[in-house]
Amino acid sequence: MKYCSQCRAEVSYEIPEGDSRHRHICQHCDIIFYSNPRIVAGTLPVFDGQILLCKRAISPRKGYWTLPAGFMENGESTEQAALRETWEEAEAKPELGQLFSMITVPHIDQVHLFFLATLPTPSFSAGPESLEVALFHPEDIPWDEIAFPTVSETLQRFIDQRTGPHVFDIRPEQALRAGDD
Amino acid sequence: MKYCSQCRAEVSYEIPEGDSRHRHICQHCDIIFYSNPRIVAGTLPVFDGQILLCKRAISPRKGYWTLPAGFMENGESTEQAALRETWEEAEAKPELGQLFSMITVPHIDQVHLFFLATLPTPSFSAGPESLEVALFHPEDIPWDEIAFPTVSETLQRFIDQRTGPHVFDIRPEQALRAGDD
Ligand SMILES: [Zn+2]
Ligand SMILES: [Zn+2]
Repeated sequence: MKYCSQCRAEVSYEIPEGDSRHRHICQHCDIIFYSNPRIVAGTLPVFDGQILLCKRAISPRKGYWTLPAGFMENGESTEQAALRETWEEAEAKPELGQLFSMITVPHIDQVHLFFLATLPTPSFSAGPESLEVALFHPEDIPWDEIAFPTVSETLQRFIDQRTGPHVFDIRPEQALRAGDD
Repeated sequence: MKYCSQCRAEVSYEIPEGDSRHRHICQHCDIIFYSNPRIVAGTLPVFDGQILLCKRAISPRKGYWTLPAGFMENGESTEQAALRETWEEAEAKPELGQLFSMITVPHIDQVHLFFLATLPTPSFSAGPESLEVALFHPEDIPWDEIAFPTVSETLQRFIDQRTGPHVFDIRPEQALRAGDD
């Protein structure tokens, strides 16, 4: 950030009085511009013991499999965001269950939320951001082709039948080991 | 937002291709500026059956009681944010327990997280954002002086001994009834 988005003045980068972190500040408008983590919300949709995964049609991690999930928008709830993303990526309308995982990924300033979800019928298809959508028996999950470590961690804990919610974080070492972009 | 924070050009406000929402866009830099909900993380600290509350020294809701909580920062986990805010507002270092509530407040684009927490000793004092910090027996909670509906909902469910996590949202009608700012 170089310029104030309200008045075009150059912003400074300093620690405001009473704060402990550097922020971008417009002295002219007397505004502090904060930057905060973003929420990625999604589901773990299950039909008859099989898990729905989406093959990504877009970067990052194009061609890899993921659970349907995406950035939460202003004005919606976490549950609405999870269901919307499930519709957009997999054209599926599951019944939402409990929060299963809440995983911070601090090095990219994201918090990933996955809700359990049940598909009443095996009705789904690839949305614009997916190449393919398919159901996988737990023993058939393509572990080497999972897009993100938060997804593989969530899947593993679900298959291990561990009750949630699982609240933890994933650090860069793990992300790199898991082949993160 | 009027100007691009990278190049000072005027931004447009339109729906990008493939998107469904209006965004601020700099045509010159080819950047889309997204705005997303922010996370407020805090604790419900308990010592010997009593709950720790902080009387706010700052607006909004100055003079009202709240659980220690505040905006999650980049680079930290949800748990770290909750503990940091508990230290900053109440100078207390509880042991963190499970996630107890995750409440979306869609009309202000916030998601509030409260973790259960146990104080090993009754050691606390008012940080710079608090006028006073005190322990309350459940029957003594000043319900009419609670700062935010997410805090009163979280307290009520805890006192009712309902097991969490509680995932729900609070809409403007409720917020107004509860005297939100
Ligand atoms: Zn300015
Ligand atoms: Zn620009």
